[in-house]
Amino acid sequence: MIRTFIPAHITAFFVPKFNENPLLAGSLGAGVNLNKGVNLFLNLEGGVERHIHVAFDGKPVGKESAKISYSVADEIIPKENIGEVEIWQYFDFPNGYGFGNSAGGALGTALALAYVFKNKTFLQASQIAHKYEVLNKGGLGDVIAQVHGGIEIRVKAGAPGIGVVDNIFFEDYKILAVPLGRLSTRNVLDSDVVKIIEVEGQKALRELLKEPKVENLMRLSRSFAENTGLLSGELLEIAKELDKVLKLPSSMVMLGKSLFAFLKDGEISNVQEVLKDLSIERYEICDVWRGRPKVERWIGE
Amino acid sequence: MIRTFIPAHITAFFVPKFNENPLLAGSLGAGVNLNKGVNLFLNLEGGVERHIHVAFDGKPVGKESAKISYSVADEIIPKENIGEVEIWQYFDFPNGYGFGNSAGGALGTALALAYVFKNKTFLQASQIAHKYEVLNKGGLGDVIAQVHGGIEIRVKAGAPGIGVVDNIFFEDYKILAVPLGRLSTRNVLDSDVVKIIEVEGQKALRELLKEPKVENLMRLSRSFAENTGLLSGELLEIAKELDKVLKLPSSMVMLGKSLFAFLKDGEISNVQEVLKDLSIERYEICDVWRGRPKVERWIGE
Repeated sequence: MIRTFIPAHITAFFVPKFNENPLLAGSLGAGVNLNKGVNLFLNLEGGVERHIHVAFDGKPVGKESAKISYSVADEIIPKENIGEVEIWQYFDFPNGYGFGNSAGGALGTALALAYVFKNKTFLQASQIAHKYEVLNKGGLGDVIAQVHGGIEIRVKAGAPGIGVVDNIFFEDYKILAVPLGRLSTRNVLDSDVVKIIEVEGQKALRELLKEPKVENLMRLSRSFAENTGLLSGELLEIAKELDKVLKLPSSMVMLGKSLFAFLKDGEISNVQEVLKDLSIERYEICDVWRGRPKVERWIGE
Repeated sequence: MIRTFIPAHITAFFVPKFNENPLLAGSLGAGVNLNKGVNLFLNLEGGVERHIHVAFDGKPVGKESAKISYSVADEIIPKENIGEVEIWQYFDFPNGYGFGNSAGGALGTALALAYVFKNKTFLQASQIAHKYEVLNKGGLGDVIAQVHGGIEIRVKAGAPGIGVVDNIFFEDYKILAVPLGRLSTRNVLDSDVVKIIEVEGQKALRELLKEPKVENLMRLSRSFAENTGLLSGELLEIAKELDKVLKLPSSMVMLGKSLFAFLKDGEISNVQEVLKDLSIERYEICDVWRGRPKVERWIGE
């Protein structure tokens, strides 16, 4: 059994970069990787045919519901491999809420299979995950961000090995993540909002690179979220409630109806109180995941 | 006090890529990062002038002997910073034997300072380390390899953020590292051997990418070392003695009079016996360092 852990990835702001070649498509922007995300277990069994099975949170899912993972697996598993390949994906955050689950599942699938079959390098496997993410409009920048970890700035768009990701130094911050609802990445990227996103995202990136600090990241992230009109209504009201007890502004997870904030230890109990008052029960307080994804042989029990 | 750990980096084979722009200079090739290397402690003290102090293994060194680290520090420390900056570097391997000490010291210095002053991103700091390494002919590919960790393939030359580094998946190998003597990188790179190195290095890289496996890496590394004439005489004799008890061929560290080999657990005691018979007392058996360099605030005692 092989276990991989791929961090959840929150995008703080972004500039989509579309391209007919999926390896050149991607995004510019910034975000943060969390120590919660996708845990994936790969199990190989004997058999007389070439079979791939994918399960989300313990429930088998068909090809249509897990198209990205199936495509990744089909490309990496050697054509001559006979037997059952089981890919068990467990998610710490709900699907569609903006935490990079689909990229995490794709990347975890790719790395676990390349680890077992030793037929692809790390970048080759990651590129296959990126390619199917992009082709299926799962996302643009999550895979390369998850490959790097930390608080990241995507300074050149593209797949791992083509795009370039930088990191910001930081100390002592925890991340509050509040998943509140779904938002279709596909719908937003297909709409006119994309033009405002491009202008505001470029502006935020320029400003962040001038002063690459967490405090600046959160100010820029919040401006981006409000200026693009994506953060509005009830979500904005909740963000404002959180701000009352936080030093740095909270902001919106791109793209989900979800919020996030950077916390110092002393702020945790106050923010928990606010969430309780708002009757919000589902949230996570995470550490930043600083490293590469984890891939290892796993001996259970 | 800030602590950084930068892995020792062994180059297995390489193709030097010279360029007037030090950020475009670098190397192609492959190698491995170890869980021993350079531990660096950064300490800031008050003072009335802007001072930088560097010490190797506890002994203060002057600007001429630690030109790379001094240059890196001078560029990153803000011009207006008044006071003493102490950079204590401790090396697990001897200097000049091919384990990337100078790059490790430069990168550790850069990352520790950027972590304290929060005035550079991870890539900006790494590029400054790479630049002075190249300008002072300390090495070409160590910094970017150390940034990535693992068993690495440099597929595009250049500084971090410009060059591209891939990784190979592997399981259960330990690395034997035997430092036997110095070899001047500068002398080799200034000689005619460079032409053979370029041809043999390109060939090895092509072959490794066709089949990106540890077993292939070591076969290609050994051919490279012998075909370039760098591994010869007594060093080659010792390599052959090690080979007698190992499954994979041992090879030469580029560039030092040093040897390395990949070991499975069952091979350790046999190889230790051979080293004892050869009266070689100084060697390390390491794990592969899989991640990014470590940078953290450190509370001693």
